Amino acid sequence: MLNLNKQVKIKQLPVGIPKENDFYIEENKIPDLQEGFFLAKSQILSLDPYVRAVMSGRHFYNAPQSGSVMRSRGVAKIIDSRHPDYNKDDLVVMETGMQEYCVSNGDDAYFADTGDAPLSTALGVLGMPGLTSYAALLGPASIKKDDVVLVSAASGAVGSMVSQIAKIKGGKTIGIAGSDEKCSWCLENARFDFCINRKKDNLDEVLSEIAPNGVDIFFDNTGGEIQHTVLTKHIADYSRIIISGLMTQYNVSEAPPGPNLGNIVKMKATIYGFVVYDFEHMREKFINDVKGWYADGLINFKEDITSGIETAPSQFIKLMNGNNFGKTLVDVTN
Amino acid sequence: MLNLNKQVKIKQLPVGIPKENDFYIEENKIPDLQEGFFLAKSQILSLDPYVRAVMSGRHFYNAPQSGSVMRSRGVAKIIDSRHPDYNKDDLVVMETGMQEYCVSNGDDAYFADTGDAPLSTALGVLGMPGLTSYAALLGPASIKKDDVVLVSAASGAVGSMVSQIAKIKGGKTIGIAGSDEKCSWCLENARFDFCINRKKDNLDEVLSEIAPNGVDIFFDNTGGEIQHTVLTKHIADYSRIIISGLMTQYNVSEAPPGPNLGNIVKMKATIYGFVVYDFEHMREKFINDVKGWYADGLINFKEDITSGIETAPSQFIKLMNGNNFGKTLVDVTN
Repeated sequence: MLNLNKQVKIKQLPVGIPKENDFYIEENKIPDLQEGFFLAKSQILSLDPYVRAVMSGRHFYNAPQSGSVMRSRGVAKIIDSRHPDYNKDDLVVMETGMQEYCVSNGDDAYFADTGDAPLSTALGVLGMPGLTSYAALLGPASIKKDDVVLVSAASGAVGSMVSQIAKIKGGKTIGIAGSDEKCSWCLENARFDFCINRKKDNLDEVLSEIAPNGVDIFFDNTGGEIQHTVLTKHIADYSRIIISGLMTQYNVSEAPPGPNLGNIVKMKATIYGFVVYDFEHMREKFINDVKGWYADGLINFKEDITSGIETAPSQFIKLMNGNNFGKTLVDVTN
Repeated sequence: MLNLNKQVKIKQLPVGIPKENDFYIEENKIPDLQEGFFLAKSQILSLDPYVRAVMSGRHFYNAPQSGSVMRSRGVAKIIDSRHPDYNKDDLVVMETGMQEYCVSNGDDAYFADTGDAPLSTALGVLGMPGLTSYAALLGPASIKKDDVVLVSAASGAVGSMVSQIAKIKGGKTIGIAGSDEKCSWCLENARFDFCINRKKDNLDEVLSEIAPNGVDIFFDNTGGEIQHTVLTKHIADYSRIIISGLMTQYNVSEAPPGPNLGNIVKMKATIYGFVVYDFEHMREKFINDVKGWYADGLINFKEDITSGIETAPSQFIKLMNGNNFGKTLVDVTN
């Protein structure tokens, strides 16, 4: 009755930026459903930069091996259940993996709840990227009115939510993005007050001009040169620095040096190694707040979506090259 | 009636480790006492590593110039007062500068209070180094029972108090010091559980052995290689890292790279740029606690003290070379 389960598997752990032939597609039988589990059909898969860090063993999740199904979070619809809390047709957000069908005992799942917003936002503004932005700003970064907030990878799923939430909280926001097109979107849709094109503008000079007293919050999604310039020259007194992503180094085999920490002491700044999984206790309030803001027209988002499980490897590679524009997704409903 | 005021002045801002001829001694008239000020005779001067950072403009205090009196905190005895809150013979801790006489409006002064301990401790275990250790451990580092606490420059004024306070709070302490003699003192007098001789032992290997799960608190007084090794390899989950001093780079003209921050994210660690001046609100409780602990025999300290204002430059140079052993002071009572 059921189809086979099409899965994206790892052929070999990539060196540098992943290539198409680091992955392969395999069709396997859908496992029998055990008592206490449910079976779900993937609807939308989320491609996330941190997965590359997992593949290098630089994340607290264990590194996958050759033959592992690629890690992916997704929205899935339950098609059969032997679990008391989950019923047929329930929509859940879970660790689907890059595959069409998945089973779970519910430990890694929660019900998708997106209010007036489309289902895909359960993986974006109302999902992990949204919670990352929300929990970091309201948690360790303690955003307050008039804070100057700088964010790298500004047009991404996390970056654009950082700006929109920061603006709601009365901050001023500066984005750093990789093209004029991305910058325009940031200014027009994600409420950024300013956007720096890292490929064209001189970050150091522009920041000196537009944030002469430094930034109160730096939300770093990239690491590398941007992190170096900001941390050594452009942080304000008592600056809060959220290291959330390190996109520039996910694809290199040896981690490059970091910024000298002298300026951190001089400015009495704090650097938080931020991992969203520690902020599950904020999820309920986050969902309610963002659903409300969305209904009020305060939340925009952009999606970079393709169709079909076979497109997942190339979407992931595009994300790794920074050529995505918006939250990178794969529609696997059909 | 009064003597002239012998002052240590800066001839030129040093390049690298300061040399004797970067300083000169000058005798000047003691200024007339204005209403609202007091005049005090320096008793003991404190030599502190951070002053080198000030001289390089890498501190939030403005850099001094050629002809400036060297910065120094000290204990002074008031010999004349036109200030309502200060009387003759009061002992105060203040920014004396490296000189025999000083005037103040009291803004930078507080009464020396050392209980049963000698007056010099107002500059050591009961002074800024003590408060630094106390406020960092009980403040941002939130020390709790069984925390593994690692501290560099372990036999110094700050390092040895970090261990003693951490032990009182139920922690386990590991020191890093520059000689076997210093390590012995750390183990015998400052209650360290372990001490690593950075000139002889392989820090990476020893830490892997004695702290296999990493350190919960790293109190960094040095920066450099030690900081790199600890931050990239030896921090525990949710580690709190106090960057208090950066002795290895105070004397270099260009700040070297720092540690890659990937491991900070992986371990969900926090790095605090720690400056003691933000913790004045803890001073009263600190003084009471440490006086009590001293009376209970729980606080040891070591002083490296010379006599006469003329010895101040060479004491400072010795401190900069790491050849001091204990809190570096100059007795100027005579």
